[in-house]
Order: sequence, then structure tokens, then C-alpha cells
Amino acid sequence: MSKNLTKRAEDYSKWYNELVVKADLAENSAVRGCMIIKPYGYAIWEKMQAELDRMFKETGHQNAYFPLFVPKSMFEAEEKNAEGFAKECAVVTHYRLKNDEDNPGKLKVDENAKLEEELIVRPTSEAIIWSTYKGWVQSYRDLPLLINQWANVVRWEMRTRLFLRTSEFLWQEGHTAHATKEEALEETEKMMHVYADFAEQFMAIPVVRGTKTDSERFAGAEETYCIEALMQDGKALQAGTSHFLGQNFAKAFDVKFANKEGKQEYVWGTSWGVSTRLMGALVMTHSDDLGLVLPPNLAPIQVVIVPIFKTEEEFNVISKVANELVSQFKKLNISVKFDNRTTHKPGFKFAEWELKGVPTRIAIGPKDIENKTFEVARRDNLTKEIVSSEGVITYIATILETIQNDLFSKALHYRDTHITEVQNFEEFKDVLDHKAGFVSAHWDGTEETEEKIKELTKATIRCIPLNNSLEEGFCVLTGSKSTRRVLFAKAY
Amino acid sequence: MSKNLTKRAEDYSKWYNELVVKADLAENSAVRGCMIIKPYGYAIWEKMQAELDRMFKETGHQNAYFPLFVPKSMFEAEEKNAEGFAKECAVVTHYRLKNDEDNPGKLKVDENAKLEEELIVRPTSEAIIWSTYKGWVQSYRDLPLLINQWANVVRWEMRTRLFLRTSEFLWQEGHTAHATKEEALEETEKMMHVYADFAEQFMAIPVVRGTKTDSERFAGAEETYCIEALMQDGKALQAGTSHFLGQNFAKAFDVKFANKEGKQEYVWGTSWGVSTRLMGALVMTHSDDLGLVLPPNLAPIQVVIVPIFKTEEEFNVISKVANELVSQFKKLNISVKFDNRTTHKPGFKFAEWELKGVPTRIAIGPKDIENKTFEVARRDNLTKEIVSSEGVITYIATILETIQNDLFSKALHYRDTHITEVQNFEEFKDVLDHKAGFVSAHWDGTEETEEKIKELTKATIRCIPLNNSLEEGFCVLTGSKSTRRVLFAKAY
Repeated sequence: MSKNLTKRAEDYSKWYNELVVKADLAENSAVRGCMIIKPYGYAIWEKMQAELDRMFKETGHQNAYFPLFVPKSMFEAEEKNAEGFAKECAVVTHYRLKNDEDNPGKLKVDENAKLEEELIVRPTSEAIIWSTYKGWVQSYRDLPLLINQWANVVRWEMRTRLFLRTSEFLWQEGHTAHATKEEALEETEKMMHVYADFAEQFMAIPVVRGTKTDSERFAGAEETYCIEALMQDGKALQAGTSHFLGQNFAKAFDVKFANKEGKQEYVWGTSWGVSTRLMGALVMTHSDDLGLVLPPNLAPIQVVIVPIFKTEEEFNVISKVANELVSQFKKLNISVKFDNRTTHKPGFKFAEWELKGVPTRIAIGPKDIENKTFEVARRDNLTKEIVSSEGVITYIATILETIQNDLFSKALHYRDTHITEVQNFEEFKDVLDHKAGFVSAHWDGTEETEEKIKELTKATIRCIPLNNSLEEGFCVLTGSKSTRRVLFAKAY
Repeated sequence: MSKNLTKRAEDYSKWYNELVVKADLAENSAVRGCMIIKPYGYAIWEKMQAELDRMFKETGHQNAYFPLFVPKSMFEAEEKNAEGFAKECAVVTHYRLKNDEDNPGKLKVDENAKLEEELIVRPTSEAIIWSTYKGWVQSYRDLPLLINQWANVVRWEMRTRLFLRTSEFLWQEGHTAHATKEEALEETEKMMHVYADFAEQFMAIPVVRGTKTDSERFAGAEETYCIEALMQDGKALQAGTSHFLGQNFAKAFDVKFANKEGKQEYVWGTSWGVSTRLMGALVMTHSDDLGLVLPPNLAPIQVVIVPIFKTEEEFNVISKVANELVSQFKKLNISVKFDNRTTHKPGFKFAEWELKGVPTRIAIGPKDIENKTFEVARRDNLTKEIVSSEGVITYIATILETIQNDLFSKALHYRDTHITEVQNFEEFKDVLDHKAGFVSAHWDGTEETEEKIKELTKATIRCIPLNNSLEEGFCVLTGSKSTRRVLFAKAY
């Protein structure tokens, strides 16, 4: 249990890897780079999905489903996008197995069942979707198309880590088509804000909203908006992106519409996505050396009730009270578990539910029944309170909200105290080496400088923050004139 | 619109293919055999998913996610299962593309990026899941495992049809592990009943519950339970299956547990699934020559409001009333659309919403406003009623329930009058040729006879119904003694 969990200060990376497995979120599979999302982890992902799906629908989007496979010739139609993903594509070349005569009971690929054209397992679906949109759009009346897809995608990664970087991952990808550039840009920004609101209000993760530099932009996009979060080790994590595609995919797939004047124009596009990577961000933002810390909005179990008893009679009395609480919590849609296992001691259970990040715990012993009080513990700050049994339901409902807010405030404080303005490269390196976090620095705007800084420090430009005010200055590396600061950081 | 829809009596198969596309449910993609599920079709699928997911969770199951790919050596471990699916496996052999020097701007498979071991795109997930269960099960305390997965699977089909048979399809697959044979059998049957209840109560599709013969059984299972529905053309459709796997997969993947006495035993397994094929069953059970007929439980729009107006003033008055209705329907969770397009005539709208199967329609003209009445039309039986504007909300709520029940009754009547008992092979053929539907016949229990009947008539044994009473008789083909009747039919 948590006793065996590596401490964050010792080895943050090891702590993360262990915690994901020990808390039953996910594990590695026998398939290189592909993970198994276990029921407890998947329950958290389902809560994320439900809320995002609600937000997408509220902003006018509909779900649909497009094929897993993309024929190679279609995949390569938008050249920049294809080039960007070419090195990580899983390719289907055959469609049949047959008995291996040399190894009875074994199978081998049937060479007679070679596909005429190879199929790419989608690393992203712009190609297949824009080739479809061609058939859906004739006139301005068919626009906008506001479509989202929940799907699995495959990007063949060489170095993988549970949730953060896996060869297969789950995500949603929005793909919209518009009559005007302005409308597409508005959509791109809107969805970035949807993601930011979701991260902050639902996951309690503060994010910086910004745009990517040319070199970090999505392949095939004209502008990439992003939300960037900061993990407890001072490394940044890109939590979601929203791309303005210009007319690139419309041109590659010949998607035109007749405008109100009857003139043919190319359609404007956007795409945007978040993935199971958010699970990694969730773990790394809030959790501690005892295990997961989950924001109440995302906790599969929001309150656990642990009985403290010696005799069967005590257990029966406590169970009656606990079951009554369970039904009251359910009425309020508070998800509750009464841990009535008789095979484990309370101390074991406390540690287990702490490891799993359950936000609140009610302990009930014979004395509590007598005194009409319960001991209520908060997972986030590990405090305990004695609460009257009458008021406990309201108390829990209230502190669940408090915890949600406190987690955000705590993460926000950490983030805000880890955005450091520097004036020169010495300071820049010093912050990265001794403090970490975001470094706010002037940059001359060239790709060469960006690349050089990455070489020297491993830090990349995470984003050009949206709220950046113009400010005269000089590039930290080259000393050339610069008009605004950008955010650098080492990143996941 | 429906004017152009082929009539069922003319060509049922063509009617189906056209309807699926015209009603915006799905379309074929550029990828052989893979479909695109369009937003309207996907919205119906989402409603199915939500209800099934609720039912699975209510019966103690949790969702998880396992990899898309299965290494070949793992795939072939359970030999019968592997053999059963070998001929329809999409195989990933490479993990990278590179620039094609001979064709600038084009890509080709990088031969240096050949996988050491081929990966099968899952046609079903028993192999990958049981290889994982090995790590999850040590003791009887770890059992049962009750897990479900929502996923896409690929079976390379040579002849495909939208929803009914596609190379990629969406489904859920439950995979459970148990300490005893009895418990696994109980689970297998339970899930068949969950499917049957879902089909009947939610989709309004009556089904026969039964077991498959040896030849129709799932590869790797010891018993396959199924639910069989009857389409309007008298052909059967397998709507869901639940498999008792015995210890086959436990043995193939060495999944053992220590029982209460500390002795090692193999685990018992089940698996069960339904897919987007259900969409096909839905269309073919209820729809008519005007288009879709959707049971209210599954209709993305349950009531559509169409304004009848000439002047803008009339339109404004009607809109006010309609918007008021919309907000009242929303309060009752009745999904409603006010079709306020000014670009289309009422007749066009009527036909469009009929084609899309919206269960009820309210038409509002200036006269209706004056008389405080609305015209309400039912999609299922095409009747119209004049309803007082005051009572219209309650009226719609009530007829939505009525329609749900009536659709089931109508389908049940059709089904029940299309189960024909026959005594000999002449009658058998005659029913298939002139009446269609299920043929209830004695069968000698041999695979040879089953095969011969299939050759002669194209009919297969759909199932051995669960409620079959024992009855002495003689096989319709061979005249050999038989103890019970089974259900034959031509099938999708």
C-alpha cells in the first residue's frame, strides 16, 4: 500500500508510475506501449467523458463515428499532416491468417491476403473525416458542421508511459467545417475555452491558455491553441489543443460550398481534442505521498464509510447506521461505499481508500453510536473532525464542495508561484535548474533560437499566453529585440 | 425523400439500404466494408448504449478498456477461438511510413519498421483479456471479475451491409471470470435475459431466447445463448449472444485461483456482446414505406413541432406558442424540436420527419391558435387527432408510451404469427417459400442434417428455444427420432 509507494521528493517519475498501478488506474499490457485501463481508472475517465460530452452538446456539437482505418492514399492527401504523423503509423497490410503447416496449432499471415492498398490505423481522423465532408457539403446551408467523435487512436511511440504517452489512447476529436474564416477561428478559440473551463472547474487543474509556436503546431494546422497545466514537479503538461485548420484540409479533399451568391468557396476547418492523457494530469496535479487525491467531481467514490468494531454485535449495530447513511447519500447523488469487509482491519482500509483518493471518509465505532457523532476525515489535507450524526450528510455535501475548491486554489497557488519572469539566460537556466515551473521570457521569435534553447536546457515554448501584454524586451538567448514574453518549461 | 424510397414489397433489401442512408443513419466510407455512423444514427446508438450501460452496472459490472491489438502468439493461444476468427483478421505488420522517393509527396511503408511479431486488430477480446486476468486472479477472493468494454472491433467481411455486417463495428463485450461452473452458467443466462429485456422493453423488438447448436456456437465457447428477432421480411436476425466459455480460456492462458481450501483451480468464464447490428434490427423491425419508425425510447427527437404559416406575423405568433411548448416538453425530459426553418414548406417538413421516424408531430397554424387546438400526428400508425392546446403536453407524454407499447405488440403479433410448426420437409420448404418466418421443426440433432437442410433451403437453426417442451417426433429431413423442436429460419 502507500507504505511501499515511492515518495515524490525521492523520484517523482517513479512515484507516478507506481501510483497509477497501485491505485488500480491502469497497467501495461503485453502489447508494446498499449495500456489496460482498469475499472477504477475507467470510472474516472467516464466521468470526464460525461462532462465533456455535455459541454460539447451544449455548444451545439453532435457525435458521430468514422472508420478506424485510413487508406494510405487518403492519409497522404494533406501532406503536412501526413508527414507529421508518418513516423508513428501502425499499418495494416493483410486481412487474413492461415494455419502454419510447419507449426501445428499456430497461425501465420496469409500472403495471398495482402491488401491492394495499405490501411493506416488512424493517428487522428482529419483525413477520413474531410474526405467524408466532401459528400456532406454543397451549399452554405450545409454549414457549419459541428461534429465530435469518441474514439481510440494509435501513434506508435517509442517511449511510453501510462496515460501520458501510449501507443493506443482514447480521446475525443472534434472536427468542424465553416463558411468563413472568422467563424472557424471563433470555434477554435471557443473549444479551447471549453477545455480550459473543464480542466479548471471540473478537474481543479488551473491552465494557461495560449497558442503554440510554428514548430509546436499541429501538422496541417495554421494555428494551434492549447491549454497548459503545471505538474507538481514543475514540468508542464499540454492538456488539450484546438486547431484552426484554415482551408488546408478543404483544399486537400476538395471540400467546397456554394456561398449565398452561388460562388464556390473552400470550407474553413477546425479540430480539437483531449485524451486519456488528462488522467495523467489529474494524478500529477493533486496526488501526494499517500496516494491519489481526487477532486470530488471526478471521484468514483466520494465518501467511504469504515466501521470500527470488535464484536459481531457491534458490527451489526454500526451496519444499520451505515446503511441508513448510504441511502441518504444516494438520494443526494453522492456516491458512497460502505466498506463492510470483515476480512480487513480499519487501518488497512484507511490506507487503501487514501491510496485510491476517496475525498472523504466516515469512521463509525461503538463510541460514536453512543455519542451520536462520527469521525470525518478529508483526504486532501488529512484533517479529521468530529461531526454530529444528525448533521453528517450536510457536512459531507458541504466539504465535498470545499475540497473541490481547495484543490483548485492549492494548484493555482503552486502554478502562480511557479511562473517566473527572467531577464537573461543565466536566470533562465537557474530557474529551470533550481525552481522549475514556467519561465516567462522574451524570445526573438525565430525557430532557431527556440531549437537552441531546447538543446541547451530541454525547455520548450509551451505557449504564447493569450493574455500576454505587449512589452519591449530582448531575447534571453540572442539579445535580439522582442515584443512579448512567452512561457518556457520542461514538459511531459 | 420518401417518394423516392423503394417500397418494402418491391425489394426489401433495397428498401433497407436506401432508408439507412436517406434517414441519415449511416453511409459507406472509402474504406472497404467500414461505415460512417452519421450524427442522427449515432444519437440512437448513444441511447442504446446509455440504457445497456445502466443495465450492466445495475447487475454489478464495471467498464474497463483493453488494447485494440492482440499479438499473434497470444491470439492463437485458444486454438478454437483463433481458428474461428483467423480468416477475418486485419493484421498490422509495420509501424512506420516514409517518404516515397519515386513519388514526391507520397508515402510508403518503411520496410525497416517491420514488427517482430504481427499484431491482430481485435475481432473480439477474449485473448487479450484472459491474458490480463491471469495477473488479476490469485484467490477466490478476487472472483468474480465482472467487466465490460465498449469498443470497436474488426472482422474482415467479404460482403458487407450497413449496420448488419461491417468490417469494423462498435459493440460492447462483457468478459467475466468465476470460481464455479454454476456461477458462470448463471451469469451467461442472466446476460442473455438482460439483452432480451433490453430488446423487448427498450427497442420494442420481441425476441426468442435460446441456445445455439454446435455448429453455430461461438468459437471457443461450450454453450452460446442467443436472442433471435424476426424482421418484417420473415428473416431472422441474431440480436445478441452470451457465451459460457467453460475453462477453455482459463486453460489457454493459465488463469488459476486458490479456492477456499487452498487448492488451485481453473477459473470459469463467460463473454457476451451486442453491437451496432442492433441498429439494423431496429430499422427492419418497425419501419415502413415512408421511412423510419422509431420507438419513443430510442428517438433522438420524440416530438417535432411544425408551424403552418403564410405571413411573418403568423410565424411570430406561432413561434411564441411553440417555444412555450418546447420549454414545457424539456421539463418533462421529452426531446423536442421546433422546426422553424423558413426555407422549407410544411409538406416537405412532414415528409422529412416521417422519413426520420419522429414518433409524434404537432402542427400549429393560425386557425389552431384561434381554436386553442393543435393537430397531433402519430408516426407509427399515421393517425391524426385534434387536441386542446392545454392538454397537449400530457397527451404527447401519454401517446409516447402508447406508441412504445403498440410497436412492441405489433412486432410481437407479426413474430408470433410467423412461427410455424411443420411435420415434414414438404411443409418445411413450403413455409420458407411462401410465408417465411421461423419454422418450428423436429431435427435429429446431427450436424450433417443441419448442413443438408441449409444446403437445400438456406435456412439454419436459429436456436433451440429455452422454453421448448420435450415432444416426441421425427426429424423433418431424415425421419429419425427427435425429442424436441428447434427453430429454423433464413437469417441475416
